[in-house]
Order: sequence, then structure tokens, then C-alpha cells
Amino acid sequence: MYYISELREGDQVVEHYLCKQKQVLKTRAGKSYYSLKLQDKTGCVDAKVWDLNTGIDDFNENEYIKVEGQVLTFQSSLQLSLRRIRRSQEGEYDPKEYIPTSSRNIEEMYSELKTYIDQIKEPSIKKLTEKFFVEDKDFISRFKAHSAAKTMHHSYMGGLLEHTLCILNLCEFYAKQYPIINTDILYASALFHDIGKMSELSGFPENDYTDEGQLLGHIIIVLQWIDEKIKEIPNFSVKIANHIKHCIISHHGQLEYGSPKKPQTIEALALHFADNTDAKLRTFTELLSNSDEDGPWIGWQKIFDSNIRKTTF
Amino acid sequence: MYYISELREGDQVVEHYLCKQKQVLKTRAGKSYYSLKLQDKTGCVDAKVWDLNTGIDDFNENEYIKVEGQVLTFQSSLQLSLRRIRRSQEGEYDPKEYIPTSSRNIEEMYSELKTYIDQIKEPSIKKLTEKFFVEDKDFISRFKAHSAAKTMHHSYMGGLLEHTLCILNLCEFYAKQYPIINTDILYASALFHDIGKMSELSGFPENDYTDEGQLLGHIIIVLQWIDEKIKEIPNFSVKIANHIKHCIISHHGQLEYGSPKKPQTIEALALHFADNTDAKLRTFTELLSNSDEDGPWIGWQKIFDSNIRKTTF
Amino acid sequence: MYYISELREGDQVVEHYLCKQKQVLKTRAGKSYYSLKLQDKTGCVDAKVWDLNTGIDDFNENEYIKVEGQVLTFQSSLQLSLRRIRRSQEGEYDPKEYIPTSSRNIEEMYSELKTYIDQIKEPSIKKLTEKFFVEDKDFISRFKAHSAAKTMHHSYMGGLLEHTLCILNLCEFYAKQYPIINTDILYASALFHDIGKMSELSGFPENDYTDEGQLLGHIIIVLQWIDEKIKEIPNFSVKIANHIKHCIISHHGQLEYGSPKKPQTIEALALHFADNTDAKLRTFTELLSNSDEDGPWIGWQKIFDSNIRKTTF
Amino acid sequence: MYYISELREGDQVVEHYLCKQKQVLKTRAGKSYYSLKLQDKTGCVDAKVWDLNTGIDDFNENEYIKVEGQVLTFQSSLQLSLRRIRRSQEGEYDPKEYIPTSSRNIEEMYSELKTYIDQIKEPSIKKLTEKFFVEDKDFISRFKAHSAAKTMHHSYMGGLLEHTLCILNLCEFYAKQYPIINTDILYASALFHDIGKMSELSGFPENDYTDEGQLLGHIIIVLQWIDEKIKEIPNFSVKIANHIKHCIISHHGQLEYGSPKKPQTIEALALHFADNTDAKLRTFTELLSNSDEDGPWIGWQKIFDSNIRKTTF
Amino acid sequence: MYYISELREGDQVVEHYLCKQKQVLKTRAGKSYYSLKLQDKTGCVDAKVWDLNTGIDDFNENEYIKVEGQVLTFQSSLQLSLRRIRRSQEGEYDPKEYIPTSSRNIEEMYSELKTYIDQIKEPSIKKLTEKFFVEDKDFISRFKAHSAAKTMHHSYMGGLLEHTLCILNLCEFYAKQYPIINTDILYASALFHDIGKMSELSGFPENDYTDEGQLLGHIIIVLQWIDEKIKEIPNFSVKIANHIKHCIISHHGQLEYGSPKKPQTIEALALHFADNTDAKLRTFTELLSNSDEDGPWIGWQKIFDSNIRKTTF
Amino acid sequence: MYYISELREGDQVVEHYLCKQKQVLKTRAGKSYYSLKLQDKTGCVDAKVWDLNTGIDDFNENEYIKVEGQVLTFQSSLQLSLRRIRRSQEGEYDPKEYIPTSSRNIEEMYSELKTYIDQIKEPSIKKLTEKFFVEDKDFISRFKAHSAAKTMHHSYMGGLLEHTLCILNLCEFYAKQYPIINTDILYASALFHDIGKMSELSGFPENDYTDEGQLLGHIIIVLQWIDEKIKEIPNFSVKIANHIKHCIISHHGQLEYGSPKKPQTIEALALHFADNTDAKLRTFTELLSNSDEDGPWIGWQKIFDSNIRKTTF
Repeated sequence: MYYISELREGDQVVEHYLCKQKQVLKTRAGKSYYSLKLQDKTGCVDAKVWDLNTGIDDFNENEYIKVEGQVLTFQSSLQLSLRRIRRSQEGEYDPKEYIPTSSRNIEEMYSELKTYIDQIKEPSIKKLTEKFFVEDKDFISRFKAHSAAKTMHHSYMGGLLEHTLCILNLCEFYAKQYPIINTDILYASALFHDIGKMSELSGFPENDYTDEGQLLGHIIIVLQWIDEKIKEIPNFSVKIANHIKHCIISHHGQLEYGSPKKPQTIEALALHFADNTDAKLRTFTELLSNSDEDGPWIGWQKIFDSNIRKTTF
Repeated sequence: MYYISELREGDQVVEHYLCKQKQVLKTRAGKSYYSLKLQDKTGCVDAKVWDLNTGIDDFNENEYIKVEGQVLTFQSSLQLSLRRIRRSQEGEYDPKEYIPTSSRNIEEMYSELKTYIDQIKEPSIKKLTEKFFVEDKDFISRFKAHSAAKTMHHSYMGGLLEHTLCILNLCEFYAKQYPIINTDILYASALFHDIGKMSELSGFPENDYTDEGQLLGHIIIVLQWIDEKIKEIPNFSVKIANHIKHCIISHHGQLEYGSPKKPQTIEALALHFADNTDAKLRTFTELLSNSDEDGPWIGWQKIFDSNIRKTTF
Repeated sequence: MYYISELREGDQVVEHYLCKQKQVLKTRAGKSYYSLKLQDKTGCVDAKVWDLNTGIDDFNENEYIKVEGQVLTFQSSLQLSLRRIRRSQEGEYDPKEYIPTSSRNIEEMYSELKTYIDQIKEPSIKKLTEKFFVEDKDFISRFKAHSAAKTMHHSYMGGLLEHTLCILNLCEFYAKQYPIINTDILYASALFHDIGKMSELSGFPENDYTDEGQLLGHIIIVLQWIDEKIKEIPNFSVKIANHIKHCIISHHGQLEYGSPKKPQTIEALALHFADNTDAKLRTFTELLSNSDEDGPWIGWQKIFDSNIRKTTF
Repeated sequence: MYYISELREGDQVVEHYLCKQKQVLKTRAGKSYYSLKLQDKTGCVDAKVWDLNTGIDDFNENEYIKVEGQVLTFQSSLQLSLRRIRRSQEGEYDPKEYIPTSSRNIEEMYSELKTYIDQIKEPSIKKLTEKFFVEDKDFISRFKAHSAAKTMHHSYMGGLLEHTLCILNLCEFYAKQYPIINTDILYASALFHDIGKMSELSGFPENDYTDEGQLLGHIIIVLQWIDEKIKEIPNFSVKIANHIKHCIISHHGQLEYGSPKKPQTIEALALHFADNTDAKLRTFTELLSNSDEDGPWIGWQKIFDSNIRKTTF
Repeated sequence: MYYISELREGDQVVEHYLCKQKQVLKTRAGKSYYSLKLQDKTGCVDAKVWDLNTGIDDFNENEYIKVEGQVLTFQSSLQLSLRRIRRSQEGEYDPKEYIPTSSRNIEEMYSELKTYIDQIKEPSIKKLTEKFFVEDKDFISRFKAHSAAKTMHHSYMGGLLEHTLCILNLCEFYAKQYPIINTDILYASALFHDIGKMSELSGFPENDYTDEGQLLGHIIIVLQWIDEKIKEIPNFSVKIANHIKHCIISHHGQLEYGSPKKPQTIEALALHFADNTDAKLRTFTELLSNSDEDGPWIGWQKIFDSNIRKTTF
Repeated sequence: MYYISELREGDQVVEHYLCKQKQVLKTRAGKSYYSLKLQDKTGCVDAKVWDLNTGIDDFNENEYIKVEGQVLTFQSSLQLSLRRIRRSQEGEYDPKEYIPTSSRNIEEMYSELKTYIDQIKEPSIKKLTEKFFVEDKDFISRFKAHSAAKTMHHSYMGGLLEHTLCILNLCEFYAKQYPIINTDILYASALFHDIGKMSELSGFPENDYTDEGQLLGHIIIVLQWIDEKIKEIPNFSVKIANHIKHCIISHHGQLEYGSPKKPQTIEALALHFADNTDAKLRTFTELLSNSDEDGPWIGWQKIFDSNIRKTTF
């Protein structure tokens, strides 16, 4: 396959890509053209179709298309100028090639995640986590495939799993340092804290905010799922249920970040620190890795409200 | 009955009161005494028991007790000096006399509230509200008896009903002024918006924050109840359910006031304005009514971050 | 008349429009051209004059001009390409056709507004309002013709009257719900609260901030007018005057929104709620009505700091 | 006279003082007593009257009284224990001895202030300032006697004059450093900027917020006075009037400090800096001068949100 | 030894304690008495000396004294009523008994801390840390004995070492999770980040802010020390020096928390997260451990701006 | 010399300029061209090189180049279209012509600055300032040549000197008005307060943030320099050193503006006011002087968060 990250100026391209965006614009002279954004797992590229009359079949956003054209440079970026387009047919392309995916092995991460469930001692809490992460095949399959964000850190397949696992690692470490922490509550809350994103964001290839996501948000969505499973567990302690829910709704740490309650227990606070630490250090890592600046300064970043810098000696 | 608001210095008192608070303190000389707070529906008064040896039976906070003693003045406030105390027995006192209650007729308010349900046109939304406010006798009875706050506005029996009705009145008026508003969504959301307080605050005579109230808050608590009832209604529209839930969770208007989402629809915004308007104008009314200042200035009020003033000509 | 809202690509146009904006720009090739914004009561359209040599007479911003040209599409918006322009002469055009105007009948709104004056009981307050809204013909005529904003809600002829009346309606409703409110003070303050906008914004067709508006603001401007009229009323109570002025200067509710005092009386607070409620719900209504999005989401709105959504079932 | 600053433990006192505060309290044993705050120009002292039966005539707050008693120490502060009190009669006391007064000569400051009026070149601006500070004998007399604050900096007789003069000095210096500043506008605005305090605060001995002061504030009060005088000056430029008013209303610098507009001209900004600099450096001076701490640290000060420190080598 | 935590009402006490506070007050009757705060490593207790005439020798704050008296209860707290006091002589008391000390073994923690120096690879960075933590015996001895705070978390002997070590543990864990982190920079910065507290706070038994601490703060103080040592290392890289200093000055994370720069490198950000995590989770642990509340709620805590709760099942 | 401020449309230009910026872009047709920013002391101009093949030698940013071309107008701004470019050789150009420079005489300002050193009485403080401003020729020469900012006020050669002198003038005036101020501390702190900018910003012609400037900032950089000089002065008082450093680190006035401590002494506060006053009034002056608006309004300015206005009568 001819990956987008390998396109070079002047090349001729005949390949299947995912069409992430399609706009119909007009030139100053009044002629219509298409402005497209094409994607594979290695990145995105802009494409133009200047002549819509011949060789250009119908297609929509978020469909796979077979394109034929040439690589040009415009304003110091590469661009495809396309002569022919048709819809790809199933079998002609492998969806995995088109969707950014975690660099870590998904099954290995999932196995490691389950070791945390094994460490939960209180039977009903353990059962509650198993109902999602062990027994519900459909949930497990969607959980493994989901991202943890639309565009920020972990915005790739397996990102939600990777983020959840990394938080569990941090939580385990915290629990060693501050032994007053109850790991049953903390691990269960960490496992559940972001699964609401599976309804807040649609699955790949779209990976965009849903109506439910915008109206309710992942912090609210997950509560209903937990309530449903709790009802299936006889005599599930109300105190435990409220504590786990409290950890989940307070994990953004502050009201102004969308948590309706601030952390009131050490488990809730630990979960918030784990989430914030992984979110920020992972974002910083991705920014450093993806930067193509020559010098050490990457430029001002909204999330850090600061210019940031590569470490060099 | 000898109401607390009618106590006069020098009077002898033999009466049943609700003991809201009980502390065991010691005098400088090392002698133990009780410091109590007694309540009836007309107000509260401090009471002291200087001699614990004779005539003072066992009793706890939030119990009704029969007291015998004298009214004194201390630091310009009235105070009871008690010689005898025993637990009241059921039948000796009428609980209604001890708990602050709405000045409006509860059944009349409730009938008026149901007229809003009658106006809901969409059958499944109407059904959802009926499942709470028409069919669930236990819910209705507790709803009528609940307050809308621990100490602020509407912190009396029937306060939740009175506040909900007043918001419905405002919503109805808004809908006339801004006809783009959908009254089915708005009335249903207004009916549900604060019922979570029925678990956030314990019932009278305690009327204090519960564990669940502190950990989750009324905005979260109500969502589970609604989900349960929705499941009983076949084919309830997900879009409608999300819209009503959105109105509820955003009704505080801002993230920093504990809403995990800001209002995104005109119904959500209207509900927020109705809630805020009633909360503030009702609080202002209560402050003016309860003030015993001679002059027009009531003093600095935290909720308004301002000194406030009675209107006089 | 050929309304702007009815222009279609390819049409030839010969019509009088109001020229809201006129810029002289140059093409890359160095040739001067005009970029205009033309307006009638149905909307605005961009226009270009590529050839300035023949058929293009002198004209200025905020003048009426007769134009001749063709409707094109550029970047998915309509645009006029003009061949001829001359100043329109009085009588050739009806100014009412060019200025956005309230959809409600102005005289009916004005009659309704005066019923609130009739309800004021205290004679000197009633007299004060009459001096503006009954006796001052010039004031009345300008008041009816003014907008309540440059671009936000009620930014059309009659908008100031419509906004004021809507606030009076809300105030009347509040006074029923919270009878401690003094309607004499509240109605008078509501009538006066925004009339300073008659000097803060110039009249139509300009409807833009004046020097006085920028330096002082409508909250300050109105005070001088009220002082002048009060002097003509013998023995006008200083206490009443200060109260009405307090309601006016505090009606933005918070210092950071330009009120030099926060509301300290229930009438001042009620006026603030009425103003804020109408401003926000009216803006929301206008955004929903004017949106041409296909889906329910209208996009992020600065005034609500949120994406907003049409209500659909 | 026996000044309060000279009281020593054990002394017998027979003297006239101003009674700033009078409370009727009760001892634990139920006996009424008076708790007073007595003042002269050197400071304040607490006084108690334990026996109200003999030798204690009627008197009110803010009256002068002749007291007889002894100086004691309570909780490491001095306190008067009084046996006899009667109202002082006019002539028995010199009011100047009881009211804190500027340490600078008032007439000298006033002469210096008038030199700034002499420097104003534009005739109508000069005339406007003269109408207050040269022609209006009553205004001049009250202006000289007023404070600039209730308790903060310059809260003494002549304080308003001293503050105004100090600001004029700073403005003159700024104008030398930044010659683009127009001194006519700046001096006039500086002269007027705080005169509204003459109605915001009552005169001495009370020196407390008035109703008008609380409802409107000194920034609003002054505008009406200026409008009245401007009307007496033929053809006073509207542009100049608006500019001077803008400087006055924006002199607190930020909306959240009660200015309805931020400074938009360099004269408005310069006035704000002069006002803020004098307010803060004068407050700091007074805190250092009045502190009786042994060490260099004065303690946390709300106005500076910081602990502050005397300068020592 | 008779520890303060073991005092019981009615006991007679003859023991050496550290006098943390000494005030001379007067009774209502005008008689002087001492109000003291006595401390040993198990806690603090109030003490009164009602009769200053006999048996009470001279002594000052922060001296060790031998006291003789009885344990009473006042306002539900224990209190010592002392009859005799004299200064303790060296040798009569063991200072370690009077100063709160880390529960962990100081030498073991110190050995573990040095393993991080061993892991630093870049020779000049390693040398820089050794100059403090290996070669400077006086520094090492004071570092081991210092607290990390006056009253918050780690406010005991060895607290600075314990906090530093815990941060190094967290940093090591972060470096494993986010391998882009440079551990040489991170470990060195972590070792140095709070050593300025050794001059910001005086040593035990005082453990209070110094003048230098208040005027400059620990973030500034440490920079000079590092500069001095760097000069002793030939050719120390300016880039590395600036990076380490940047990590130190930005470790509070935000300007409003006293960092003059925000973290701009991943090492600076990681250090901030480690510091914040340990500070908050350690504080939470101490609050839970020290609470003597019966129920799960500990009460509102300023540092968390929230009520906090023990975890119970 | 043909100054940039004197370029007129249509002119032919052959001149040496400083190349501040050089970008290689491509036309829509894929042809590379240079987009340059050229500078002399009178301003900046955009330049384009459309044909890179002949007559265009190699050159870099921040080099002097000799250009040949024509003045055009594009989007109502002037632009150079260049045909030939070569590197200028030393001697062909006078660097002073290319760098914006203070309009005041540098040596006169410097002499005036030294009079403040003469007024310092405490010998060691005087010595400390002399070590920089009298004895260190290299420092003096760089100090005179430096700017006080990259783009804001005083962003020209001599700007740092001019800003420092203006602050000394203000400090001298403050000290007269508030005699409690210690001028030795204040003058020394004022002299040092911004010299860290000599390493925060590189020298001209670059005048841009350095790595050290971004990582540490001028407030931190200066401390090390002062420490070094203090060590050369025997027995320099620690108290004085801490006080001067405190004034320097707190001169931004608030933590959120990058000061790690708020001003705690009157000298620190006075320095902050002097710095802020000069920064804002100087910026305002420059904005008014440089504006080419026809009317009085200059437009919204981020630094003032407001539209600003020229003063006209």
C-alpha cells in the first residue's frame, strides 16, 4: 500500500483512502471543485478535484474511495490533484490500514488490564467489573476498538484501553505509596471512569461527538450502565455504589472542568491525579514526537497555555 | 401550645419541643451541662440544663422532648434554663407543629402542578411524568412533604412542591413570550429538575444532607430514577430522553455551579432562568420578611455578595 | 421591489439598496475596485464593482444607491457584480424597506406599554414616566424607531420598544409571584432602563455606537435625562429618585458587566432578571430562527459559550 | 485635655469625649450594662458602665458626653470603667479635638490646589472648575472638611482635599513625563473625581455611608452636579463634557472595581494611575505609621492580600 | 516520659515540655496570668498559670521547661493548670522527644535517595547533585533534619527528605511510563526542588517562616546555592543549568501559585505532577489519620475546598 | 539613504536593508518565491522575489542585504518587488540606520541615571550599583544599547535605559510625596529591576527571546548577577540584599504576572507602581503617536482590553 506518510512531490498515486471530509467549493471564476481530506493510519492529506465532469463517481464523507492523481506541493504542504475517483468495494481495502491504532499490542494490554480485576478482593465489586470487562463480549470488543478522544491524546483505536491501563498502573503505584487507599474502589473506578466515551464518541472511522455525547457527556452516560449491572448483582452495597459513582463523576477534579462534584475521598482524588497525569504527560509526549520543528521550541500549545520545548543536551 | 416565637423573658414553660441539637459541655469549674437547640415550626431557641442529676431523662438529637424551665435573656437573646426533661411519647405532640411548613395549601399546589402534566401533548413524555406524579403514591407523598433546601429558600415542608410549581408558572409564562419553546420538554424537565433533593436531603425533622447527597448531588441522583421509569415505557425516544436529561443536568447554568453541561437548547436555558429567578427572588423575599432590622438595610448577604435593602417610600 | 433575500444566481438586478459599507481595494494586478455591502430589510449582500471608470457615480456609506448588475456565487455565497451605480433620490425609495423592523406592530406595543404607566399609583413616579412616554412627542417618536442593540437581539427598528415591553411583561409576572415587589418602582425603572441606548447608538440607518455611547454608556447617559425631568416635578422624593436610579445602574447585575453597583433591592434584582431573561431567550430565538444549518446543531455561540441546538423530536 | 492616646492604667479620668458607639448588653447574671466606644482625635477606647442606676444620664451615639471613671486593662487593652456620664453642652468641648484631621495645613493645601485651576487654559473647562472650587463657598467649605474614606486612607477631616491635591501633583508629574497628555482635561477630572464622596459619606463626626452613597456611589453622584454647572456655561462643548465624565467614571480602572467603563483616553488612564498610586502608597504609609508591632512584620493586610513589612536596615 | 497524647483528666504532671507559645493575659478582675502552649512529639496542649508569684521562674518561647501541675478539662479539651515552672537544663530532656519526626527511618530513606544520584548518567549533573547530597556534610545533616512545611503535609523532622524521596519514586515511575523523559534532568531537579525550604523555614524546634523565606521564598533561595556549586564544576553546560533551574522555578505549575514560569519541558511538567500528587495525597492521608470524627465525614478542608470523607465499606 | 518610511508607489529602489524575516513559499502554480520582511530604523516593509533564478544571491535572516526593485501597492499596503539581492558588506551600511533607537540622547540619559547613584547614602548599596553602572564598562555599553521589550513599549536601542531612567524619575517623585520610602533601597532596585532583559532578549538587530529568557525570565536572571557582585563587597548586609531582591522579584505586582512574591514593603510597591505606570502610559503614547487612523478611535488594544481614543477638542 502507498501510505500517506510516504507520498512525495511529483508521484503518481492510485490507491484506496478513507475520505474524512468532502466540500464542494467554487473557483473565483465560478467553477465548482471538490476539496477533500483523505486519511490512512499514517496521516491525512488534502486533495483537490478540479474537473468534476469525467471519471469522478458519487461518494460521501467517511466512505472509502479509490483515487488516481498526482502529488503536488502547495503552500509548502503536499496535496493530491485527482483525476479519477470511485467508491471502493468491501474486500478491496483493509480497514485497519486506514485508522490510527495504538502502537502497543491490544490483546497484551487487555490481559494486563484484567490482572487488576483479579486483584479486587470485595466480591461484589469484582463481579461488577467482570460483568463489563469479562462477561460482556460486545462491550469488550467495542472497548478495545475505541479511542479516548476525538483529537487530543489517545485519539486512536485502542486509545481508550491504553489510557485506562496506564491509569491503572499509576493507581497501583499510588496505592503502594499511600497505603490508606482502598484498591478495590480505586481499580473499579479507574476501569469505569472513561467508558462513557464509547457513547460520547462514535466508533471509527468517524470518531466524532455524538448527540448523546454533547448533551450528556461521558461522565453522565456511564452511570446508567453501572446502575443496570448493579441491579443484576444481589445485595450490592449502596455505599459502595455511591462511592464508585462519586469517583467517576469527580474525576475531572474541578467543577469548571465538568465534574458535578469535587473529589471527596482519597480514591476519588487519586483517580483524578492518575487521569490528569496521563492526559498531560501523554499529550506532551505526542506533541514532542509529532513535531517537525528544527529547533527545540515546539510553539505555543493551548492545553499547556505555554510554548513547549524538546529536551536536548 | 406555647410557641417559641411567643416566649417572653421570665415566663415559666412546660411544653414539648423538637431537640434539633444536643451538646455536652463543661463549665470553667469542670461541671458538665447540656447545651440544646429546641425547635417548633415558629423558630428555634437555645436551652441550657445546668444540673444533670435529677429530672433529666435520656434523650437524643432529633427526638421530641417535654421540657420544664424558665425563659431568661443572655447576650440580648432569649434562652431556656431547664429543670426537667423527658422524651415525649407519640400522641403527646403533633409533628406538624414542629416543622416549618409552606404557607400555601399543599393539596391546592399539587392540583395546580398536575394541570401542567395535563398540558403535555407527546404521549410518552406525559406518561413519564405521570409515572412519578400521578401513579407513584409513595413518591407523591414524599414529594409533597419535602423541602427544597437545608437552610436557603424553601427549606420547609412543601418547599420542594412550592418551588417546582413556581418554576412551572415561570416556564409557562416564558413559553408564551418565546413561542419557539417546546412546552412538553420544558414542563417535564421542570417537574423533574429538583426531585433528586428527595434523596440529597433527608426528610423532616432532620432535613440534612445525606451521604448520597454529598457524594452525588441531586442533579445525578434523579437520572437513575428517570432511567428506571423510561424502561417501563415501550419505545421511549432516546432523543427525548437525552433532551430531558440534558435540561436537568444543565439547570444550574454554569459548570462552576455544578452542572456538568451548560444549557444547549432553549428549553434547558429557560429552565435555568426559571430556577435561578425563583431561587433568588424567593430568597430575597424571605430575607426581607424575616429581618428584624429597624432601618431599611438588612446587612451583607453572602448569596447576593451585597448589602440588601427593604423598599420604603 | 427585488428583495435581497430573493436574489438568485444568474439574475440581473436593477434596484435601490442602502450601501452599509464601501471599501476601495486593489486586485493583485494593482487595479482598484469597490467592495460594498448592500442592505435592505430582508438582509445583506456583498457587491463588487470591478470597473470604476464608466457608469459609477460618486456615493458614500449609509447612502441609498441605485445599482445595476448580476448575481453570482462566490465561495458558496451570493454576490452582486455591478456595472452601474448612482445615488438614489428621495422619493425613489421607501426607507422602511431598507431597515430591519420589528415583526410586531409598533403602535400596538406602544399602547400596551402605556398601560403599565396607568398602573403606577404613586403620582410623582407616574408623572415622571409620563414626562417621557406621554408628553415628549420627540422622545416618543425616537423611542419607537430605535433598536436595542447594534448586532445582538432586538437590533431592528422598534427593538427598543419591543425589549422594554417584554421586560414589563416579565416584571408584571414577577410581581404576581413575589408580591413584596413594589410595582411603581419596578415599572418606572423598567421603562427607563435602556432608553440611554437612544444616545449610545445612532438612529437608523446607521445604528452604530456614538462617541458618547463609547465614553459613557447607556447606563450613565439616562441619568442626566431623568435628573432634568425630576427637577420639573415639585417635591419629587429623593429616596424614590435614588431607588429608581439604583435599579437602572444595577440592571446588568454584576460589576464586571458594567453596572457600578450590584442590585440591592428586590426591584433592582427583578429588573436585572427580566432584562437578562429577555436578552438571552430572545437571542436564542433569533439564532434558531436565522440558522440555515441542516442538522440540529447551530454551532458554538460566544454569548452562550457553548454549541447550541434546535429542538427536534 | 486628657487625650485618649495618653490614658494610662490606673488613671482617674474626667473628660468630654465623642461617643461613637453605644450598646446595651447583659452580663451572664442578667444585669444590663453599657458597652461604649469613645473617640477623640488621637484615637478610640472601649468603655463600660456596669451600674446604670445612678449618675448615668441619657445620651446617644454620635453625641459628646462628659465621663468620669477609671482606666483598667482588659485582655491586654486599656478600657474605661465609668461611674458617671452626662451629655456635654456646646461650648464645653471643641469639636476639632474629637475628629481626626489632616496633619497638613488645610488652607495651604487649598491654595496649592487652586494653582492647578490657574493652569487650565481652555476657558470653559477653567470656568467649570471655578464654579465649584472658587465660586461656591458652601461647596468649598464642605470640601475642605470632608474625608476621602470611611476607614481606609485619608479617613480624616481634610482627607478629601489632601487626596485630591496629591493626585494633582502626580498628574502634573505624569504630564511632564508624557507630554501628549492634555492637562486641562486631566486637572479638571482630577479635581472632580472624588467629590461625589461628599454625598456618599456623611460629614464628621459621623463619616459613614449614606443611603445615596450605598445606592449610587460617588462615581455616579458627581455626574449630576457637573451637569448642573455645565448648563450654566454657554456653549460648553459636549465633547469636553463627555471626556471629563469619562475620566471620572473610569477612574477605578476596571469594571469589577465599580467603573462602568474602562479608561479609553490617556487622561483617563493617567487619572486612574494617580488615584491608585496615592490610595495604595498612602494606605501603606498609614499602616506602617500606626503599627505597634515590635518586629518588622505588620501582619496580613486584606487590601494588599499580603503580609507587609517595615523597612529597617 | 509522660507524653501529651497520654494526659488524662485529673492527673498530676511533673514533666519537661517544649514551650511553643507564651502569652501574658489578664483576667476580668485585672490579674495577670500566663497562657502557654506546650509541645512534645505526640502533640500540643494548652496550659495556664494562674498565680505568677511563687514557683514560676523566667522562661521564653521555644525553650524547654519543667512544669508541675494538674490536668483539667475546659470546653471539652484538656488543659494543664500549672503551679511550678523552671527552665530545663541540657541533658534533662531529649530533644527528639519534643519534635514531631517522620515515622520512616531517616538513614534508610537517605540511602534510597542516593540510589537516584547513582542512576544519573551525565557526569556534570551527577557531580552537581553529589556536591550537595554526598559531599556537603553540613548540608546533608540539615537536610535530614528539616521539615517540608510549617503546618501542612510533612511538617516534621525528616519531612523534607521523605517528601523528596517520594517525589523521586513518582518520577522514576513516570519515566518508565513516558520514556521520552530524561531522568538525569528530572532526578536532579527533584532532588533540588524544595531544598530552598531549609532557609525559608527555620530549623526545629521553631520551624517557622524566616525573613528570607517571606521575602524571597524557597523557589528563589535555592537558585543561588546551585549557581555557587555550578561554578565549582568546570564547563558545566549552560543549557543544562537553565533546564534544571527552569524545572525548579516552574514546579508549582502555575504563575498564581508562585512559579514565575509555567513548565515548558516534559521534565518540568513531570516534576510538577510528582510534587502536587505527593502534596495532596499525603495531606489527605494525614487528615484521615489524624481525624477523631466518629463518622466518615472529616469536615470542610480549605486545601481541597471540600468536605472530605474516610473510606468505609 | 532611501528610508522605508519614505517609499512611494512606483519608485525604483536600490538600497541596503536589514532582512528581518525570510520565507520560501510557493505560488498556486507551484513556483517557489521569497517573502521577505525588510527593516530600517524608520520601519518595516514586505518584499517579494518572484523569480529566484538570476541576480538573487544567498542570504539569511538578520543579515544586511542590498536589494534592487520596485515599490508596488498590494491590499492597500506598500510592497517591494525585487529583481536583485546580494549580501551587504561591512562598511557599506551603518548599523545605526537599521535599528530603531530612542529619540532621546543616550549619553544624557545615562548621566542623569548616574545622579541617582550619587544620591544613594548607604555605602554598600551605592557600591553595589556602581559595580554595574560605573565600573563594568562592558555592562554599561550593553545596557545603553538594549531595548526594554521585543515589541511593546521601549522596543528600541536605548529603550532599557530610557525606561529605567523614567522609573527612577517616578520613584524620586514618590519618595517626595511619601517620605517614609527609603530611597537607597528604591533607587538600587529600580536600577536593577529590568537588567535581566539583557539576557532575556538578544541584542539588536535580533532583539528576540533567548532560550534563557524563555526558560527563566528576566526576573530570575538578574538575581545571579547581583549575588556575584555582592560577594565582592565585604560584609554586605543580608537584610539589604534580601530586600533589594524582594523588590526585583515582586515588581510585576501580582503572582499571575510572573512575580513569585507580591510586594511586601513600600519600596517594592513603589517600584511596581513606577514600572506599571511607565509601561502603560508609554505604550499609550506610542499607540497614539503611531496611529494613522483618521478619526479619534484607534481600535481595540489587547493590552488595555479596550478601544482607545485620541484626545481632541
